[in-house]
This record gives sequence, C-alpha cells and structure tokens, in this order.
Amino acid sequence: MILAGARNPLNIGAAARAMSNFGFSRLRVVNPYEVAFREARSAVGAAAVMAAAEECKTVAEAVADCTLVVGTTAVGHRQLHHPLRRLEYGARLIRKHLASGNVALLFGSEKFGLSNEDLSHCHWLVRVPTRDEHGSMNLGQAVAVCLYEIVRSGAGASRKPAAMAPAAAEEVEGFTELLLEALRESGYVKARTAASTEQKIRRLVRRLNLPARDAEVWLGVLRQILWRLRS
Amino acid sequence: MILAGARNPLNIGAAARAMSNFGFSRLRVVNPYEVAFREARSAVGAAAVMAAAEECKTVAEAVADCTLVVGTTAVGHRQLHHPLRRLEYGARLIRKHLASGNVALLFGSEKFGLSNEDLSHCHWLVRVPTRDEHGSMNLGQAVAVCLYEIVRSGAGASRKPAAMAPAAAEEVEGFTELLLEALRESGYVKARTAASTEQKIRRLVRRLNLPARDAEVWLGVLRQILWRLRS
Repeated sequence: MILAGARNPLNIGAAARAMSNFGFSRLRVVNPYEVAFREARSAVGAAAVMAAAEECKTVAEAVADCTLVVGTTAVGHRQLHHPLRRLEYGARLIRKHLASGNVALLFGSEKFGLSNEDLSHCHWLVRVPTRDEHGSMNLGQAVAVCLYEIVRSGAGASRKPAAMAPAAAEEVEGFTELLLEALRESGYVKARTAASTEQKIRRLVRRLNLPARDAEVWLGVLRQILWRLRS
Repeated sequence: MILAGARNPLNIGAAARAMSNFGFSRLRVVNPYEVAFREARSAVGAAAVMAAAEECKTVAEAVADCTLVVGTTAVGHRQLHHPLRRLEYGARLIRKHLASGNVALLFGSEKFGLSNEDLSHCHWLVRVPTRDEHGSMNLGQAVAVCLYEIVRSGAGASRKPAAMAPAAAEEVEGFTELLLEALRESGYVKARTAASTEQKIRRLVRRLNLPARDAEVWLGVLRQILWRLRS
C-alpha cells in the first residue's frame, strides 16, 4: 500500500493499523512530512507494519516492483482519464492479480487526493461507493474499507452460519403446558373461554421460535414461577 | 448507529463522517464524556449528522424504537453468548430488516468494546473478518467498514418485507422486565448472581424473536402472573 503525500500522522498510523487488521504488510510512504512519519512510527497497534514501512522519494520509485497500480479516488473532483471501477469489482481484479504479482494500491493526500502526476502511474482507479453529496472519506477509513473489500472478495463463498435450531414440538408443548398452568393459577384463563384461550396461548408460543438450546432453561424458568404460584 | 462509551472525540467525529459518506443519519451516543461529545460536535465533514446526534443515558433508551439490535465485536476477547455472524452475511440481514423496521448497530468503547450488559440488549453480533493476531480495529474504521458493507450488500439485493414484524426493543425490554420481576418474586434470581442471571434472561428473551403483533398479549400474560405472585 502506498500513501502519497499524507500529511497527518494519525492517518498514517490508522492506515498501518488497518493493514495489520487485514493482513497486509508492505507500506510505502511517498515524500512524507518528516515529523508526520516519525510520529506515525510511534503509533500503537501497528508496530510491525510501521517498522517495516519504507520511505520513497517518488511514486515511480514506490510502485517500481509492482505489476498493477491502482489509484483510489473520490469521483468527480476532476476529469478522469482512467477507467474507474467500483471498489467491489476492482477488489476482485486486485485479488486475482495478487496471485501472480505485486499490486500497488495508491492513496493521495487528505486534502487533494492523488495529483495528475500520481494518477499517471495508475492502470485504473477504484472508488468507494459513497454518497455524491459527501463523497470524500477520511483517509484511514478509506484505507480500511478498501482492504476489507480485498480480503472479503477473496474469502470466496459467503458462508452462512447454521440457523439456530428450533426446539422440538415436544419441548414447545412442554413450555406451553407450564405456561398454561401458570395462567390457570393466575386467573388469566377463565372457565367459560378456557378452550379458546388455550389455543390462543398455544399459537402465541409457536410464533416465538423457541430455540432448542434454550428449551431447558425456559422450562426451568416456568417451573420456578409455577412452584411459587402454588406455594 | 449507536456508540456506547466512546471516549475519543476524534472517533465520534470519524464515525459521524462515515455515516455521512454512506448515507446514514441517525447517531445516538450513550453516556458520552461531555467534553468528547462537545468536541466531536465541532468536527468537520459531518456537521449534519453530529447536529442531529442524540445523547442517551442507557443502551436500553438508545435502542428503544428499534426492532433489531446488532452488536459489533472483535471476536475471542470474551466468551460470547450470542450468534456471531460474518459482517458480509450480517449486513445482508440488516438490509432486509431495514425494509420493515429500525435497526440499531451498536459499537462499544475503544478500549473494552461492548460490555456484557450492552451485549445483553443485542439479538446477534457481527464481526469484521480481521486477522486473529490483530483483530481489534480502530473505532472509526470499524464503523466505516460496517456501513460500507451494509450499503454494498444492498446495491443489487431485492428487498422482501419480513414475514412477521418483530417487536420493538422497548416492548422486548418491557417483556424482559416483567419476566425478571416474576423471577425475583419466585426466588429464581439469587442476590449473589443477580446481574449475570438478568443478562442471561435478557439474551434468552431476545432469542425468542417476539413478534410485534403479540407484544401486547405477552405483556398482559406476564402482568397477570406477576399480579398473582404478589397477591
């Protein structure tokens, strides 16, 4: 990852932290303000990334060993001469490319983004799908979102966790019976309308989607209340 | 979006900026340090979001009008009692839910994340797929990544209304409170373990997915039992 012209040590540190979070290790900073770079080095949470960070004089030097250079932009702030890809699609292309060579992901300064000179080193650009009315992201947040998307798109299939298994009918009916007993003790069930009240409660309990893992605890809860009502 | 216990005005401001970038407008901050909240209000780049931000005393108050409450976590820092979903899948569920009701996305403090008490208000949790070796993200960056994923996952998705609208958090908490009262009266809640029992019950109730249409009836059922226990 390459930061060109970042001015704020907090942002450099935040970028390094996101890299560490998502498993990226090679940070290059082009022509940083000396003070900002030094302060960022002492940032907590990404010591390894910052210690290995390289300082480069030019973007050309920073991207030298990369076979794909991708710029990032808040669209619309200048005329673009590059193909502009939605982050989601761009990230997939980046993943593919990483199998065979180095990719440089290039971020510009907080204030001005990438210069035309910086952009001229890029093969294409990605943008994060922010609102038109407020497109410009904080640098550290933009880095985090881009790296997240690269990692995510590589995770392949969307893995769904197993849904919470519902309790068996027997347990649901046990719950219902205990609840009905408590309601009889409490005077909620009137003799005249007992049958319809019981049906109503039975439906009510079924609409709760009682999970199997909780069935025993719920039965214990109801037994305790019932015991108390009767004592 | 709800920030519980955020300490750093820069992070509150960064969260607000990401909300503005991705088109989210309702920010609630639970029990913030006064100074941090005031300073964040003057943060650039998200004036509209910060001006409309609400201060709440408790998480319960902050989630009261929401029908789904989702916590965020760096996995593994404590034993979790909730279903934990990958952000990608969780974001899709959140999108679906937004068609029919308010969703609260809950972030904890920079240092400690969400407390067990905070977590007990959640239906389930999402985690961003960070590295195991360095899972903990900067708060502003975590917010940006989560909101990006929610927006992204909605880009092409067809929105189906939920089959059965869930009850709002306020009603679910009402149910919880009445049940807890009944359990106190019954001797189920022991003084020594009251806090953890209450959290356990709170989670238990959330896993029931109480439907909105049944909320009133359930409250009546519990009130009747409670009245009887006390008479």
